[in-house]
Amino acid sequence: MTTLGSELRKALDGYWHAEREKARVELNRPEFAPHYIPDVAEARKVALSQMQVLAAEGFPGHGFTEAQGGTGQIGRAVVSIEFLAMSDLSLMVKAGVQWGLFGGAIANLGTASHHDKYCRPLLNLDLVGCFAMTETGHGSDVQHLETTATYDPASQEFVINSPTPSSRKDYIGGAAQHAKVAAVFAQLITGDESQGVHCFVVPIRDNKGKDLPGVTTSDCGYKGGLTGVDNGRIMFDNVRVPRENLLNRYGDVAEDGTYTSPIDSSNRRFFTMIGTLVRGRVTVGGCASAATRVALTIAGRYALTRRQFSRPDGGEVLLMDYLVHQRRLLPLMARAYAYGFAQNELVRKMQKVQSAENPDQQEQRELESQAAGLKVAQTTFATRGIQECREACGGAGYLSENRLVQLKDDTDVFTTFEGDNQILTQLVAKELLTGFADEVRGMSPWEWAGFARETVSDVVKKYTAAEQILQMIRDRGRDVEEEGSFYDRGTQLYMFNEREEYLISTAARRMQAAMKREKDAFDAFNFVSDHIMNAARAHVDRTVFEAFIGGIDACSDEAAKEVLNELCDLFALSVFEENRAWYIEHRRMSTGRTKAITRAFNERCRSLRPHVADIIDGLGVPDLLANSVITPME
Amino acid sequence: MTTLGSELRKALDGYWHAEREKARVELNRPEFAPHYIPDVAEARKVALSQMQVLAAEGFPGHGFTEAQGGTGQIGRAVVSIEFLAMSDLSLMVKAGVQWGLFGGAIANLGTASHHDKYCRPLLNLDLVGCFAMTETGHGSDVQHLETTATYDPASQEFVINSPTPSSRKDYIGGAAQHAKVAAVFAQLITGDESQGVHCFVVPIRDNKGKDLPGVTTSDCGYKGGLTGVDNGRIMFDNVRVPRENLLNRYGDVAEDGTYTSPIDSSNRRFFTMIGTLVRGRVTVGGCASAATRVALTIAGRYALTRRQFSRPDGGEVLLMDYLVHQRRLLPLMARAYAYGFAQNELVRKMQKVQSAENPDQQEQRELESQAAGLKVAQTTFATRGIQECREACGGAGYLSENRLVQLKDDTDVFTTFEGDNQILTQLVAKELLTGFADEVRGMSPWEWAGFARETVSDVVKKYTAAEQILQMIRDRGRDVEEEGSFYDRGTQLYMFNEREEYLISTAARRMQAAMKREKDAFDAFNFVSDHIMNAARAHVDRTVFEAFIGGIDACSDEAAKEVLNELCDLFALSVFEENRAWYIEHRRMSTGRTKAITRAFNERCRSLRPHVADIIDGLGVPDLLANSVITPME
Repeated sequence: MTTLGSELRKALDGYWHAEREKARVELNRPEFAPHYIPDVAEARKVALSQMQVLAAEGFPGHGFTEAQGGTGQIGRAVVSIEFLAMSDLSLMVKAGVQWGLFGGAIANLGTASHHDKYCRPLLNLDLVGCFAMTETGHGSDVQHLETTATYDPASQEFVINSPTPSSRKDYIGGAAQHAKVAAVFAQLITGDESQGVHCFVVPIRDNKGKDLPGVTTSDCGYKGGLTGVDNGRIMFDNVRVPRENLLNRYGDVAEDGTYTSPIDSSNRRFFTMIGTLVRGRVTVGGCASAATRVALTIAGRYALTRRQFSRPDGGEVLLMDYLVHQRRLLPLMARAYAYGFAQNELVRKMQKVQSAENPDQQEQRELESQAAGLKVAQTTFATRGIQECREACGGAGYLSENRLVQLKDDTDVFTTFEGDNQILTQLVAKELLTGFADEVRGMSPWEWAGFARETVSDVVKKYTAAEQILQMIRDRGRDVEEEGSFYDRGTQLYMFNEREEYLISTAARRMQAAMKREKDAFDAFNFVSDHIMNAARAHVDRTVFEAFIGGIDACSDEAAKEVLNELCDLFALSVFEENRAWYIEHRRMSTGRTKAITRAFNERCRSLRPHVADIIDGLGVPDLLANSVITPME
Repeated sequence: MTTLGSELRKALDGYWHAEREKARVELNRPEFAPHYIPDVAEARKVALSQMQVLAAEGFPGHGFTEAQGGTGQIGRAVVSIEFLAMSDLSLMVKAGVQWGLFGGAIANLGTASHHDKYCRPLLNLDLVGCFAMTETGHGSDVQHLETTATYDPASQEFVINSPTPSSRKDYIGGAAQHAKVAAVFAQLITGDESQGVHCFVVPIRDNKGKDLPGVTTSDCGYKGGLTGVDNGRIMFDNVRVPRENLLNRYGDVAEDGTYTSPIDSSNRRFFTMIGTLVRGRVTVGGCASAATRVALTIAGRYALTRRQFSRPDGGEVLLMDYLVHQRRLLPLMARAYAYGFAQNELVRKMQKVQSAENPDQQEQRELESQAAGLKVAQTTFATRGIQECREACGGAGYLSENRLVQLKDDTDVFTTFEGDNQILTQLVAKELLTGFADEVRGMSPWEWAGFARETVSDVVKKYTAAEQILQMIRDRGRDVEEEGSFYDRGTQLYMFNEREEYLISTAARRMQAAMKREKDAFDAFNFVSDHIMNAARAHVDRTVFEAFIGGIDACSDEAAKEVLNELCDLFALSVFEENRAWYIEHRRMSTGRTKAITRAFNERCRSLRPHVADIIDGLGVPDLLANSVITPME
């Protein structure tokens, strides 16, 4: 690697450079070499055996506090798992289910006795668990799950039941084969009263892997990818578990059946519980980007060796020298950097919030909104970006030995799980428009529309770690010159801000107008829903751009800084190009200027071309994990 | 099915309704029920056994003349294979390789003795063949293939050889396992002189499936999909075949080694040979659309049963009632209709050209350009559209049992094979800008740029089967009213034409300017390459739109016509929305009007909503082939 490549890598690793370097060393061993195993049974076995290697070396402990048997390095846990994603996404997801979701439910929703009982065995894999939230009938609408947990004071037990076919737990990682217990989300009922969704530890299999009485598991079978993850279904027929199996941090039932909770509002209680599980979304977003970086590394290196069609002066032309090829790959590389910087900040914020004794409510909400927005952005990026990489490698891109198709297939479901991207985009919009109000969370879209009508404020919540440099850019103002100004950071910042602010304020006004006009709230919400989604996207774009600026500011190497500045231009220009119709329609840009965007965009492709190999090195994929037949390890 | 549904189906089947209805009946049997077989060996076996069923019933014969043992119903052959694609894309591709590519090479590049010898056995599968064109080093640039076929007058044999690692035949369907012979494309050398690429029949395996002496085959292994297709590689080490194994319709070698050809120009000869193989591209485009129709049927029917989130007035809301969901699926359905009409015309033109004794050169070129453009459009549509369908079904969409992931994986490579989409888009542009000049075909992009500089004309070649109705629309003029006019067909037509004509004429001018400015032709071409691609896309959009108009015109059912008219609006609006920046930048639209596009677009989603079930029936997927776990057969 050249100095430039290694400086770019350091800059993109950012605050987490040391942690990521450790993970690069830890994973650099034959057990984690990328592989392709089409057979479900074999792939599941391999993923589990890889987890055993990780468990033996304490890899999962960073996500747990010292009291729980870990090291309390939450951020390290989240950035380390990115390298599992680069190795094999089935491994990443299966590890994420065990230590992130199942372990996270125990750690965050349980109390000391649960930690004592479950944490050590789940860390060392003596206890394999699963996270049974989604049901066949309800995925996005978790508050309406149908599984019940009815307290029976006579025996001091909860009776876990699946009352309808649609209450079946579905798509649950680990449920098909390896999990012995499940963290089951169910409506808690005591004394004929429902207290909303809570989480229960429910054993589902005996030591021989047989379903326990009353439990019926089944296998989701082959999927679009993630062959090593044993997704399955669970039905409960009045399965009894002791009262203590309620994870009771936010709600408890006394021996006599009396329900108590430190949080009065059932809505707020539910969203507080869900909020503690935010790490899953942060992880999925980061891993989606990690997988995309592998794809960009493979497609990028291929384009630096593959030649096609003779040049006028003899010799065939490198794919990377074609402008159309540059336009396919370079903006994706720029975006990979952008999301990398944004993810670094998000993980930092998450570590801060989750390490606090009493996390600030406002910060927790901002964290959730940011995690949702970046999860959507990064998983969309993975789906579209890896597809582009695969197409950019032609026939070779379609062979499993070159990994692109598997990266694509495995990450495909990321747009759906840990929150469907459509729903999460609405969540971001809700928080933007109604300023993190407590009551908002539990509202259906149209209830919320009614609420927003009364309360929408013009305040846009700002978050950024790069406030100082941003202020400097703002103070300096923007370039008013016509053509050159697309490379001016002040102009770029202005354009990101304008789009966000306008879309948010008009979304609010349009919704208010629609509420007056339409006969019911659903129609009103429906009428403006696409506008609302666009507002949320504009918000995420702006925060990502600011994170990029912060990342450049923190880089001390001048040569790397120069390349990062050009990548940042390219990212900004790609957002402007995508949205150039909006900019003209809203008179933020003349028609002459939008054509200049395309010119500037192409010019940045050309100016970055000499640095492509270094830019790829900067993406930080370890050699072993960047390996493929068309891009063999050196 | 309602009357409306069946009338829509009839309209969309169009000229080919009777042929398609026959295929629907032929395929409606358990042997062709959709399946998912992850194991390569098993999947290959099943695909071959399905082909045996087809062969026994004369299914492939339509693609061959009566003299060759077929029925000469070329169009029927191409529309029938769409239903294989709906059943299983591995079957479709494997059948396409055998009867379309291998069989097509024999039929179109060979002469009577070849037909006598090979056609009957290849039709009934006594002879399984493969089509060995692509090499590891050269895919898109076929004229630079490295495999050699050197004539040895002493023995009157051709010596087939792979002189370099990059000359290895690669990704060849059938080469890994089932093919006994290969149609090999190689540089014909006789008397030390190269005569360019020709096609040779080369036996590669004995009856036990063992490689013949000098032949080394290997297996491409697992791919991103098409598990039932045995793609492989072939290396030739001076393999000798008799002189007669040259498919000699367009070039022959006498016993003494003298080369003769009915076509003097080697360029024109090459492209004439390649041109006869256009059926492959026509088929791939149609099958990409067919697969997308299955996906739209599944995702559409799911959205008509799946509910999520409670309505204000109680009861949960159908996915299809959400505007954001309508915006995901309805424009794709409209596009499926648009491409369906365009494909109908293309197949008709192909049948006409290929049935002629001496096809008109101009018509042949137009056919090739149209086939290339529609192949690009439909395969891009498949990749993006099926992905959207899969995401619109959430977790259920990711399970193989619901077919969407397999449809997506199997069609993914369609953007690459039978001509990479980037290269084909350039081909369309070349033909547009330089008026089908003979010399143009063999030029590298930059050679062509030099040529175009001198010869570009303003003439845009028009093709359409709906000339009469189009003329009426033109005569009627366009609506000048601001808001309502987006539903006016004259306005729509004007907008499609304006974009195409402007982009083509400016592409030419920009290229000329760049040629003067840049120091070499490659840089000049590169500079305008994205503009050229956009011109080609605009051309395809316009022709597709005209085909839609023709399709509506041919429909005699008033209710169906009304729905088709609204779908046509939605298709047009989706093109305008995608390109609205262009329209404003080029002053074809005011900023106020582009916002009206979004309003009109959303309004069309709402007005089409009541007809969605019928629109899906109209897509014409037989019940058995629309089957999935989330959308079971009724």
